[in-house]
Amino acid sequence: MTYQLHYWPNIQGRGEFVRLALEAAGASYTDVARGDPADEQGLPAMLHCVQDASLTRPPLACPVLVDGKQVIAQTATILLYLAPRLKLVGASEADRLWAHQIQLTILDAVDEAHNTHHPLGSGLYYEDQKPAARVAAQAFRTQRIPKYLNWLETVLARNPKADKQGGKHLVGARLSYVDLSLFQLVEGLLYAFPKATKRALKKTPLVLALRERVAQQRRVAAYLGSERRIPFNEDGIFRRYPELDA
Amino acid sequence: MTYQLHYWPNIQGRGEFVRLALEAAGASYTDVARGDPADEQGLPAMLHCVQDASLTRPPLACPVLVDGKQVIAQTATILLYLAPRLKLVGASEADRLWAHQIQLTILDAVDEAHNTHHPLGSGLYYEDQKPAARVAAQAFRTQRIPKYLNWLETVLARNPKADKQGGKHLVGARLSYVDLSLFQLVEGLLYAFPKATKRALKKTPLVLALRERVAQQRRVAAYLGSERRIPFNEDGIFRRYPELDA
Repeated sequence: MTYQLHYWPNIQGRGEFVRLALEAAGASYTDVARGDPADEQGLPAMLHCVQDASLTRPPLACPVLVDGKQVIAQTATILLYLAPRLKLVGASEADRLWAHQIQLTILDAVDEAHNTHHPLGSGLYYEDQKPAARVAAQAFRTQRIPKYLNWLETVLARNPKADKQGGKHLVGARLSYVDLSLFQLVEGLLYAFPKATKRALKKTPLVLALRERVAQQRRVAAYLGSERRIPFNEDGIFRRYPELDA
Repeated sequence: MTYQLHYWPNIQGRGEFVRLALEAAGASYTDVARGDPADEQGLPAMLHCVQDASLTRPPLACPVLVDGKQVIAQTATILLYLAPRLKLVGASEADRLWAHQIQLTILDAVDEAHNTHHPLGSGLYYEDQKPAARVAAQAFRTQRIPKYLNWLETVLARNPKADKQGGKHLVGARLSYVDLSLFQLVEGLLYAFPKATKRALKKTPLVLALRERVAQQRRVAAYLGSERRIPFNEDGIFRRYPELDA
């Protein structure tokens, strides 16, 4: 079965957390909006899915995952559904809840990163809210980035398990989808706030080490080196506006 | 088994979504921070739980639910865990995922409502960000409140099932925890933005009708009339600042 992922074709955004899980597991999937309209793909196909009036359970926004008759929106819900099928989470309810709790916390950090460049609302241009963005970004850099990274460090430090090389994961002793999400969060923060994030990462060696190991996982490394990985850019969630970093 | 809920004792906040589920199901629970320190309750007990250095799976913030050895944070994760146990969601995976997707979307609306009075950061006082709050609130009132309420209306309208009186629920034909969350969202919006919300609700009769039915559910009505229901106030997520409504 080939999964269909419906997400904006020009940004990593929230869809990237789903792409990373699918890629790391070697799953067969179509990134619909990036496909060819001749194959019933492309942006119109994505918009049709998100706006499909025949769906009795309509999504509010993308990302949307389609797996046969199952249509799921909300990044964390998609990952909750996918992870057991992709073997990217343990079998116990406790492990799955813990992973989900971490995922939601990472997505809170992602939301806050977005707010730094659009504090007054996503309907306004960045250029029209730059003074507010400077204030919001300062608070995010000095308080929130350390808070989130320190918490992830604590989670890694307290995890009693490790892999054969002694490497720590967020849940249990092997790679799970939230390790991929940690990687994506750190990548995004390093792109948008390189100075502040490098400073914070000096105090979170376990986070940094896990980020490295995820980047080196065979399938993840292949994905990151491919054209399927969309570069960070200033239309996404993590944006490099030098005036917002320090 | 008595559940322990750890949440701030003076606000509804995100904890209220958990309180409503526990109350509507008639579950036995302790609202720890509101209890007596002589009974090992009160605010110190809550803070101890959230900061407990012996937890191998530490929460970042409250609400935290403790059920025996299980310690769960993140509102949506708590409800994912509780709902089947409280019989507040259907048995199928599809129903549970759909309910969870709705819950996450409602919590997105709650986050955005909070941002209206703290657009520049939750570490700053409202008084220090009033001009920004006015801009953020206008966008929220005119674009986001209608967007969320219209989506919930669409979900209700497209649900092919109804209860015996013809009443619509968000998932299936009977009360689920996301109906309670819809109620709480509407209550909060009506408190914080009465003018804008009443205007939006004129176009969402099914949302309004469901809100009324939830309020009249026997256990919910008893809870809302009790001292256990903390009144809305200006320390919570939904705050009545008249200058932010129109």
